[in-house]
Amino acid sequence: MATDEVTEGASWIGRSVKRADGRDKLTGRAKYVDDYAPAGCLHGATVRSAKPHARIKRIDGRAACRVDGVEAVLTASNIPGTNRMPLIINDYPFLADGVVRFVGEAVALVVAETPEAARRAAALVRVDYEDLPGVFDARDALKPGAPRVFGEDNVFKKFRVRRGDVEKAFAEADVVVEAEFETPYQAQAYIETQGMLAEVEADGTVFVAGSMQCPFYVHDAVAAALGVGQNRVRIVQRPTGGGFGGKEDVPSIVAVHAALAAHVTGRPVKFVYTREEDFLAMSKRHPAFARVKYGARRDGTITACEVNYILDAGAYATLSPAVLFRGTVHAVGPYRIPNVAVDTFAVATNKVPPGAFRGFGQPQITFAQESLIDELAARLGIDPFELREKNALRLGDETATGQVLRESCGFGEALAVARRESGWAEKQKRGAQRRDAETQREEASVIAPSRLGVLALNPVAGAGAGAGADAGAGADAGAGADAEAGAGRRVARGIGVSANYYGVGLGAAGKYIDRAGAHVQVQKDGTVLVAVGNTEIGQGARSSLCQIAAEALGAPFEAVHLLDIDTTRVPDSGPTVASRTTLMSGNAILDAARPIRETLVKVAADVLRVAPGAVMVDAHGYRAASGGEALTFQRVASEAYGRRLPVATQGWTVAAPTSFDENGRGDAYVVYAFSVNVAEVEVDLETFETRVVEVTSVHDIGRVVNPGDAEGQVEGGVVQGMGYALCEEVVLDGAAVKNGNFTGYILPTMADSPAIRVRFVEAPYSAGPFGAKGLAETPIVGPAPAIANAIRDAVGVMARRLPITPERLAEMVWEKKREKKIGRKTEDR
Amino acid sequence: MATDEVTEGASWIGRSVKRADGRDKLTGRAKYVDDYAPAGCLHGATVRSAKPHARIKRIDGRAACRVDGVEAVLTASNIPGTNRMPLIINDYPFLADGVVRFVGEAVALVVAETPEAARRAAALVRVDYEDLPGVFDARDALKPGAPRVFGEDNVFKKFRVRRGDVEKAFAEADVVVEAEFETPYQAQAYIETQGMLAEVEADGTVFVAGSMQCPFYVHDAVAAALGVGQNRVRIVQRPTGGGFGGKEDVPSIVAVHAALAAHVTGRPVKFVYTREEDFLAMSKRHPAFARVKYGARRDGTITACEVNYILDAGAYATLSPAVLFRGTVHAVGPYRIPNVAVDTFAVATNKVPPGAFRGFGQPQITFAQESLIDELAARLGIDPFELREKNALRLGDETATGQVLRESCGFGEALAVARRESGWAEKQKRGAQRRDAETQREEASVIAPSRLGVLALNPVAGAGAGAGADAGAGADAGAGADAEAGAGRRVARGIGVSANYYGVGLGAAGKYIDRAGAHVQVQKDGTVLVAVGNTEIGQGARSSLCQIAAEALGAPFEAVHLLDIDTTRVPDSGPTVASRTTLMSGNAILDAARPIRETLVKVAADVLRVAPGAVMVDAHGYRAASGGEALTFQRVASEAYGRRLPVATQGWTVAAPTSFDENGRGDAYVVYAFSVNVAEVEVDLETFETRVVEVTSVHDIGRVVNPGDAEGQVEGGVVQGMGYALCEEVVLDGAAVKNGNFTGYILPTMADSPAIRVRFVEAPYSAGPFGAKGLAETPIVGPAPAIANAIRDAVGVMARRLPITPERLAEMVWEKKREKKIGRKTEDR
Repeated sequence: MATDEVTEGASWIGRSVKRADGRDKLTGRAKYVDDYAPAGCLHGATVRSAKPHARIKRIDGRAACRVDGVEAVLTASNIPGTNRMPLIINDYPFLADGVVRFVGEAVALVVAETPEAARRAAALVRVDYEDLPGVFDARDALKPGAPRVFGEDNVFKKFRVRRGDVEKAFAEADVVVEAEFETPYQAQAYIETQGMLAEVEADGTVFVAGSMQCPFYVHDAVAAALGVGQNRVRIVQRPTGGGFGGKEDVPSIVAVHAALAAHVTGRPVKFVYTREEDFLAMSKRHPAFARVKYGARRDGTITACEVNYILDAGAYATLSPAVLFRGTVHAVGPYRIPNVAVDTFAVATNKVPPGAFRGFGQPQITFAQESLIDELAARLGIDPFELREKNALRLGDETATGQVLRESCGFGEALAVARRESGWAEKQKRGAQRRDAETQREEASVIAPSRLGVLALNPVAGAGAGAGADAGAGADAGAGADAEAGAGRRVARGIGVSANYYGVGLGAAGKYIDRAGAHVQVQKDGTVLVAVGNTEIGQGARSSLCQIAAEALGAPFEAVHLLDIDTTRVPDSGPTVASRTTLMSGNAILDAARPIRETLVKVAADVLRVAPGAVMVDAHGYRAASGGEALTFQRVASEAYGRRLPVATQGWTVAAPTSFDENGRGDAYVVYAFSVNVAEVEVDLETFETRVVEVTSVHDIGRVVNPGDAEGQVEGGVVQGMGYALCEEVVLDGAAVKNGNFTGYILPTMADSPAIRVRFVEAPYSAGPFGAKGLAETPIVGPAPAIANAIRDAVGVMARRLPITPERLAEMVWEKKREKKIGRKTEDR
Repeated sequence: MATDEVTEGASWIGRSVKRADGRDKLTGRAKYVDDYAPAGCLHGATVRSAKPHARIKRIDGRAACRVDGVEAVLTASNIPGTNRMPLIINDYPFLADGVVRFVGEAVALVVAETPEAARRAAALVRVDYEDLPGVFDARDALKPGAPRVFGEDNVFKKFRVRRGDVEKAFAEADVVVEAEFETPYQAQAYIETQGMLAEVEADGTVFVAGSMQCPFYVHDAVAAALGVGQNRVRIVQRPTGGGFGGKEDVPSIVAVHAALAAHVTGRPVKFVYTREEDFLAMSKRHPAFARVKYGARRDGTITACEVNYILDAGAYATLSPAVLFRGTVHAVGPYRIPNVAVDTFAVATNKVPPGAFRGFGQPQITFAQESLIDELAARLGIDPFELREKNALRLGDETATGQVLRESCGFGEALAVARRESGWAEKQKRGAQRRDAETQREEASVIAPSRLGVLALNPVAGAGAGAGADAGAGADAGAGADAEAGAGRRVARGIGVSANYYGVGLGAAGKYIDRAGAHVQVQKDGTVLVAVGNTEIGQGARSSLCQIAAEALGAPFEAVHLLDIDTTRVPDSGPTVASRTTLMSGNAILDAARPIRETLVKVAADVLRVAPGAVMVDAHGYRAASGGEALTFQRVASEAYGRRLPVATQGWTVAAPTSFDENGRGDAYVVYAFSVNVAEVEVDLETFETRVVEVTSVHDIGRVVNPGDAEGQVEGGVVQGMGYALCEEVVLDGAAVKNGNFTGYILPTMADSPAIRVRFVEAPYSAGPFGAKGLAETPIVGPAPAIANAIRDAVGVMARRLPITPERLAEMVWEKKREKKIGRKTEDR
């Protein structure tokens, strides 16, 4: 409990304390679910559908049962409770009951003494199918007569936003731009695959521990599936090797499988997925299609925006309605636009169901609209930064849903910081100077796409990060080829910007579950236990929440210990998603700490012989405002115990009211984070590999609780966003995942990481803990469009589809050359 | 969650619901600590002192280390923190450091792959000692020049109570009686021996689970011994196979041993004691010596009482000061006595330290004073019942410490019920009629003690429980020989009464720790989780506390689940002792439930469209006072969740103020339970075995939460008290336990159990949950003196020493005969 780290100030907020969970994870001491091996533990394997849409005629487990060590083969008929995952639309069976709707759907379970035996036996379970017609493209699924996957029209959910008169505004606009965009399945690519360990305790309590983001979802699922009271189910989150949304809903399935097997066999049962299995059947980012249209006056005032946005939601609804909601609310970008028409759809297909992924429906649409904003800037001949600044939402403005931004809008400042810190003006100027000189050399620089075969993201040899040579943006998007690149290779440099906002918390779509609890318990020795319902999934929640607790109590940070997340400690606190943990669990901790602090202030006042109002509390402890030695927290806690005063509490918080009506009017989220990303890229003009040289990422997340951790969050988001922009794509061969492992699914590595300049703008949120909003997701939203815009700046083409692989980029550039040669306009102008 | 059991009323209080833990214990499903076998678990064995008092010169573990599978040999030097059990006087080392003070003291630990290897190796640890002089009798230890075990005078603690003028009162008394009494070590004889399993979790938290009464004692001990923050130690109570006080303090030692070994080896370590080890080194009831003196007027008014009470407290203080306090407060009996002088001492000797045992210092002194009350009755020629009734504490009276009984005194009613229900008057009358007829036959009935060799308590063949023939009490305690006994055997029948009161809770001696917390959490489906800090140790706490929670919330009893006791769930709630659990944890639950109930009432009012004040809550749910269907608790809970209302709380309670000054004046306990026991015995006049035929046990414990469980508590207390009266005694051969297992330590069996008539008198305590006080201990206090008095009634001798074995009884009767023959008075007259 050394407090000697507190030298710069007397607050734990805004300090880069060491991650509470860092040491254990770094040293390998942390025990993940697969590190647990209780005596007598069985291992599970899942029999999965080989068909995208079929009726199950028969499941024959006899051969599987004959495998040595097999304990049980289980199907839907073994589920004593409800065979549907309780979520938004309860359509997803834990085990297929009669019909399979995607390749990889769980059909049966095998549990055996070893994982190998279980898998060997699972392969022997014979399932007879009768094929049904399938549909594999969301646009096809919306057509009349399409095979039916869900309901009457394959639409899980649709939203609309109407504001002003879009028709009239477009008719009156000086410039109109419009384009269609497409984004792929992206895999969350968490390091730890899905895994759960279930055990029925002696008293009948079903105990499930494992890798997850949302213990209360798992809790509801296990109670429902086993048909037991919720107070007889206990869910504990084990250290979780990444989630990114991929451990929001689907862990409920894994947990139910394990719990069901434990229930039937009476033994502990563990399911840990292989990477391939995880890729095949688990959640992903929704593939999306978007048509976006902006209208503007010649001075750059955006007057209208129309969006049509389709999420390919796969075979079951999962979280798609909520994902769609976020995409809907943020569809037009962080701009003041008087006339808006947004129509969005989550559509069923016979593919693996996507769900939550950091950004939650927003990266797709933000890629589209922010790319198109640059097209608009180009058409208007306005600097892309200037266009954004001109239309940026400011305090008092209304969002697309008519929500007035009454506080905590640091967007303008974020734009200014990003422009300054990225050296935008200087780089633009140099780029413009070079543009003329390069124009003539451009013609010979493009090679045919057939010559490019490598899908990889290796750094260009010899190209230093942040090198000064830049390509400029121009009305006709001329490409700037950099003469400085070594070894005779020619690269084009470009710089691009994107802006986005991000509703913090669940918003109107999740308002009934946007609450959180906390338990705070001071010990006799002045150490503190804190329990919350939101999880640490690598984002740094432990540190931030312990800082908030320490600050609220006047306790040393080191004295605060956050207990493993356990559904029996606090009531359902909603999911760990939507960048809501700091805000919600933080506020719940504050609510819990308040009465304890009041008690301790009275005790300290008594010991110090001053009035309670004359006691000051800071990170050093409790002292008289008039001066003198501080009483340590330990001392005050011990005094309180001696007086038998209550020093344990349950805190509770609910999110501020939100609304969203049938025309998309309302306060969709309680508050918004804002971010601006500037990316500089080098495009190799022979291989069309893109290297991201530098990213400046500026965020208004309100008060920053832990700058070090926050910076890490942004860096991770930038790299993950870069992967989304350039290389990540789960490829389906019709219905089945084809590149379901890390040899085929290409992730950026540390070596690919650009120089990342992170800056925070703090526009405090009055209802947030110490002014904090939320950070986790917004870092992934902006990088892809910023990179796409930088590529456009470098080689003069606007990407309509992610990822911008070398093949696709070469194709686009080649096509542009061809069009130039034959004097035709490309369709996107 | 069927509520159809609720047919007789709408309250869960006063209903004999099924024990919440009954099924699991009955079916063997409950998992005790030894049923847990985590992967990689090591097993511990303890090297114990063979010397009662010696300096340790050397500990040589080399041979032990060579045993296959041995992982470590640990001594005091391995303890990183404080090597003293934190309790009242911190004198008890977890491992002897330099000096041993009793035979059986822990000197070193061996941990190995199997229990057998550990024990084999422990036997090979060589300890070289230098003998020190020992003292083995508390009276000797008080003498000047006695070997020093503790401090300057071997006195751990002394108390005194002064009231009125005892000298004067005795001088003015018409009758004075005085006698000395002695009681033995009694073993708690829990079915499950001591056991703990410790593990250092991945995040460094020290997790210890096992058999215990007081998780917070264990918590403090482990944190102190390992020198870690209290928030990094988590203690969980496993189902505990009996405690009776024997798992109050000493489990801290077992837990520290296991935690230390886990800390050193990095592996889970389990210690489970053998029965012999448990007998040798664990807690017991204090052996005691008491000199009691009563003075009375001829009309039966008791005017004075003087008590000198010595507890043999063994080598370390343990809980002796607190045990002594309870004995002190209750020393004169539940009577209105204006002149009192009580002096009490807890004295150190070189023997195994006794500690807590159900009754906690009171059974010893109550046996003494209640025996002497019968002697007083005999001397006064007053019926023993009448004498007690005449002097019984009533509302408004003052106890010996001057505490005014302002409420909840059902003693008078308990006496009346016991007199009526036991058939006292009728049996007395029949006994008196028979007395004359039997007088002549008595002379030949006594055989010499040398002819009796069997120490056993078998029922007299053919003697039915509750048979009608009784011996009467008379001025000269004439014995009544029963001519009805079969097979030609002659038995003497007798009836005896005793009365006692019992301070509920920790009282003034423990007032700083007499507080408790509770956590109540309503789930979405209307099931409820409750956590408290007091444990279920067989006494029925689970059921009672769940009933209290159900009643407080208006929830079905079946919907309430009490979580395993875990120190991270509520703050230090004090020990599970002193009959305080129903009162303290019950009140904490009420405190926690209150705001939830208020919330739910508002929700129900809203749904029912009535004012909150017009909502009635009972065991059926929430309804409008004006009538109509009740909303189930499940419905109301679900509505509350939908409104995001807080339905989880931490409750807290502190005991009412208590006091006790240097002259023993004050409100020693918050409230008292009262009990009256009537025992009927048959004494075999050949073997001098005593068979208890029937016991009527009447208790004022305030409102009875669960009559069925309460009855079980009383029955257990009666049988355990009968064992104390007749057969239980831990025999020491000088310093070491000689009969340390159940072949040598004789317990009553079911076959020995008398017919037990349990009655409750309910004098509600306004500060207790629904009027409850506490029950656990008082049932054991009264039976021994009631049985002793019945024996006196049967064979005319007053026992001065427990247990009243056949040998001792024969000796007493023989002595009496001899004295009669030589015309001498026995010294106790």
